[in-house]
Formats: sequence, C-alpha cells, structure tokens
Amino acid sequence: MTKTISLACGNGGEENNELISKVFYKAFKNDILEKGEDAAIIHNGELAFSTDSFTVSPLFFAGADIGKLAVCGTCNDLAMMGAKPKYLTCSVIIEEGFVTADLERIVESMKQELEINGAIVVSGDTKVVPRGSVDKIFINTTGVGEVLKHGISANAITNDDVILVNRDIGCHGATIFAAREGIEMSSSLKSDCASLFPQVKALIDGGVEITALRDATRGGVSAVLNEWSKQSNICIEVEEEKIPVSDEVKGICEMLGFEATALANEGTFVLAIKKDDAELACGILKEFNPHAEIVASVTSRHVGKVILKSSWGTSRFLEMPNGELLPRIC
Amino acid sequence: MTKTISLACGNGGEENNELISKVFYKAFKNDILEKGEDAAIIHNGELAFSTDSFTVSPLFFAGADIGKLAVCGTCNDLAMMGAKPKYLTCSVIIEEGFVTADLERIVESMKQELEINGAIVVSGDTKVVPRGSVDKIFINTTGVGEVLKHGISANAITNDDVILVNRDIGCHGATIFAAREGIEMSSSLKSDCASLFPQVKALIDGGVEITALRDATRGGVSAVLNEWSKQSNICIEVEEEKIPVSDEVKGICEMLGFEATALANEGTFVLAIKKDDAELACGILKEFNPHAEIVASVTSRHVGKVILKSSWGTSRFLEMPNGELLPRIC
Repeated sequence: MTKTISLACGNGGEENNELISKVFYKAFKNDILEKGEDAAIIHNGELAFSTDSFTVSPLFFAGADIGKLAVCGTCNDLAMMGAKPKYLTCSVIIEEGFVTADLERIVESMKQELEINGAIVVSGDTKVVPRGSVDKIFINTTGVGEVLKHGISANAITNDDVILVNRDIGCHGATIFAAREGIEMSSSLKSDCASLFPQVKALIDGGVEITALRDATRGGVSAVLNEWSKQSNICIEVEEEKIPVSDEVKGICEMLGFEATALANEGTFVLAIKKDDAELACGILKEFNPHAEIVASVTSRHVGKVILKSSWGTSRFLEMPNGELLPRIC
Repeated sequence: MTKTISLACGNGGEENNELISKVFYKAFKNDILEKGEDAAIIHNGELAFSTDSFTVSPLFFAGADIGKLAVCGTCNDLAMMGAKPKYLTCSVIIEEGFVTADLERIVESMKQELEINGAIVVSGDTKVVPRGSVDKIFINTTGVGEVLKHGISANAITNDDVILVNRDIGCHGATIFAAREGIEMSSSLKSDCASLFPQVKALIDGGVEITALRDATRGGVSAVLNEWSKQSNICIEVEEEKIPVSDEVKGICEMLGFEATALANEGTFVLAIKKDDAELACGILKEFNPHAEIVASVTSRHVGKVILKSSWGTSRFLEMPNGELLPRIC
C-alpha cells in the first residue's frame, strides 16, 4: 500500500481493490466477506445485507439526485443477489448551513424510490458537522433483503453461461462528467439511475436460470467483467460492437478520452445466464429497455482475463480500470 | 423547521428531534420507525437492525478512537434491544491524502471491538473524496443482531419500574471537550467508550426483568430520560446526588459551564427495571463498574417530564438538551 490514500484508492478499480484487500479484508476476514459478492448472505441464507455511502457531486443531476441514488444503489446490491429489498437504514451527514428545502427534496426522492422497491426505512442517524467538515451532504444506506432466488454467485460462472447487459452503458458517468465540466448537452443524456429489482423479479418469475448478476457502478462494465473472470476462473470474450453505447455517451467519451466500459452506471447490470436461457432472459430485459443485449461468451482461452474482440477481427485484453477515475461519481 | 440546517440540528436533543420528525419521519413513516427505539426490530421479531455514522474529532482520544467508537456505537444500539450483535457493515469515506497507517490503526481497533461483541463485518464500502470534501474520515457501521430477550421497549415503562445507570456519566463528552480545547488533564479522565453487550447478556442470563435500555450518547442521560418520559407517558423523578459523576468530569463541567447529564457517553446506559429486580440488576452491573446505581423512580407526578431532586429538598425539571452542544462528539 502507498503511505497515504489517493483518489485512485476509491476508483472502483485496481487500487480500490488493493485498499480493500490489504486493509479491510485483512483485518475483518471471514468466509462471507471473502465471497466478494455484491451483498452478504446471512441468517441461514434467508437474507441479503449490503451497505453503500453516497458522496456524489453535484447533488442534483439529469435523471436523478443523491437521494434516489442512495436508495437505488443499496437496493440494487440486494437485487443482484436475487433478494427483494425490504428494510433500509438511512444515515446522513449534513454540513451546517445546508438548505432545508434541498434536504426535503432529497428525502422525497428517497421515498419515491423506496416505493418502487417495496422497501421501508426502519432506522436512521442524523449528524450535522461544522462548515467545511463535509461538502454539503453524504448519505449512507444499508439494506436487508429477502433472498428469493438462492445460489446466485459471482464465483459460479462457467463455459455454459453467456454474458448480457440490460441496457446501453455509461450514462451515469457521462452525465456526471458533463455536469461537472459544465458541458451543455443539447441531447437527452441523463443518468441511468434506476432500481433494478423489478427486472430481477421479472427474470426470476420468468424461470430464467441466473448464474450471477452485478450492477456496473464505479469501474463500470470493465470492472465487473474483470472481477468475474478472476472470481470464477474463466475467460470472458466480449464482442465489442454488441455493447450498447448511446451516441451521447460516445460523444462524451471521445471528448474526454474515456472508454464507455469504464464509465460508472447506476441502473445497468451485467448478467451471467445459462446459454439455454439467454434468449429468454434477453427478451424479458428488452421489455424494460430495448438495448438489452447478449455481449459476451465464457471460454477457457485466457483464464482470469477479459478479451475485447472488435468487428475487424482484432482483439485485446480489457483491463481492470485503474488510476484516478472520476471521484464522487456516486 | 429553519430554512437551513444548523449545528443544533445534530445535537441529540430538541432541534435534532425536530429535524428527524419533520423531515425524515414525515417522509419515511411506518410502524417500526414510529416506535422510536434504539434499533428496529425486523424479520418477525427475530432481528434488531441499527445504523450510525461517526464523525468524531479528534480521531484518536483518551480511551478510544473512531474505529472503536464505530463498532461500539452500533453494537450498543443492538444490545439496547436485547440483541446479540452478529453482522456489521462498514462504510468509510476517506479524505484524499489520509495516512494509511492511521487507517490501519482504526481498522485494528474495529477488529478488537468486533471480537468483544462476537460480531463480524460482512459487507463494506470505501469511498475516497478530494481534499476538503470531508475532514479526514467518516465511518458508518450498520448492524444486525439476534434478539435474545423480546419485548424490551422505551414505550413500556410504568410506575413499577425504577431507573438505573451502569456507571459514572459524562466521560466521553468531557474527554472530547478536553482534547478539543487543549486542556491538559493530569488525571485519569478518558472516554467511557465500551461495548455494552456483555453487561446486557449478564442481566439477561441473571434473569433480570428488563423493561427498557438506552445508551446515553448525544444528548446524554438528560435526553434519554426526557425521551422515555414522553414515549411511556410517565414522570421520572431523579435523585440528583445518586447520579454518579467523577471528580474529573465535574471539573470539566465547572470549567466549561455544562451539566454532566447533558454530556455524551459511549459506554453508559440507562435502564428501566422492574422494582423487584432492581437490586439484582444493580449487583450485576456493579461487577462491571462499581459506580452502577439506582438513580430515579417512575411516578405520575408530571407525566412527560423529568424532575431533578436535590439533596436539599429542592426540585426542578431536567429539560431536553437544546442549542449547539459539541458537534462531532461521535
């Protein structure tokens, strides 16, 4: 580890994983933590349990705000384990002088998103700190969900699976970039921030054999695929042209020199589905977003690696994102 | 509500309660939240669930640090509902440039305190924000505990109960004040920060009929007694001289013009125990700290009020703390 914590340590990529494993996992180690899933499975497999703190800047942006984000983020982590979000805690740290009407607007967003998930806030904490001790407001939500579908795991993917995404990628990251840099978009670019439980429930109800699910937040689709390739000891071969990316997101990427696969998402998830059920799953997802797509196959070509194959027949490794990506993206 | 959030809104007292009820409870309202307990009881009464964010300054102080505090705080909230702390989440927000060795020291403190509670961290989140966006490090912990003793409730206290405290009060508040003001104490003053589950377990194992428990954190013993008097529609009559206060804490209070009953604690709790079991409970608590004491009776004299009776026969209302108490005390 470096002697001080750098912004890169929070990038959702390589340095972030190093900090987590060398400092936190090292001290806290236990079987549940080592599984490296989006949410812990506790209480004899009945419940999923997950936490997230939100520091996004700006607080309000196209498509969502920190309140909606705070409910979606934690509920989505539960949904990714096949769980129905049920109980949330909400802990806020507010800077002295924060405008009460803005707080009310944020809390109202949380309320609306809770209803979509059928979840309630059952415990909270409110801290106010002096001016300069925190930038405006940070929110932690922690959730407990009821596991509806058992055995979903990032460690269980095999060559029998294919990989899907539920929609076009990178909208949240591109939106925050644009807002932060003052780029005026005359387009419809907005964050993908959304609750994913309805889609997961539709897949379960539809009888889809789900192997693994993960929402592609910090570190984007690249981070998910790289984590999965290592957790399940597989090679993931991605057809680059199959990855849905909107023109607006492509524009931002070209302007700023980013890859869409490394951009953060807040309502986009990656799925590993048994081959036989892939078309069924894709059909169900398309009812929510027409850009849902099968994007990759699982092979043994380079175990622990992700290969990006272009339509011209070339291929390269898609690496885990590293360096200082955008801080305060979520 | 005021148009902006003031420091007083986080004082654990009157303004804090106004913010919680007018903004958060108003939006999130549900039966569990309205009970106003230290932890929510979920999953058919089997589990307790509670959250807390920690912003204490300085990070390291006599008797503890933010890591120990973060584990004690949440585990204590679970213990106050008669629950054994089992699973914790840990979410940290770190300022860019934070010294890694300090982070390791904090995480090591957490580990030690987890062992005392027999709890494990099963899910986490790590955010790094640019310099100036947060002061050093904030930690959220959220816990799930297994309810060992059902029916403990701040809404169930009657004239059949008496009120106890488990030790001398105000040490945490006094320690942070002294550290913040640069007061050199040649004494043994240190924070009371400690895990309370072992004491709660001893009471349960000892067969004590427990009505209610609450740890006296922000807002101190005053806040707990005032909240209880309203929640249970009772009058609490406190014998002022029975409240254990150390000479060091008295000294800080005199120097700074505070009342020990309004000072924050992190290992001190208030108990409502059936009269018949009061001596039994006090005896068990004294094995942990010799200053445990029966300090008040429950009557119907002024329902919803707390009366402080001096040894000279005078009496006055002990009010809910208000105004700007010490921010970043926990």
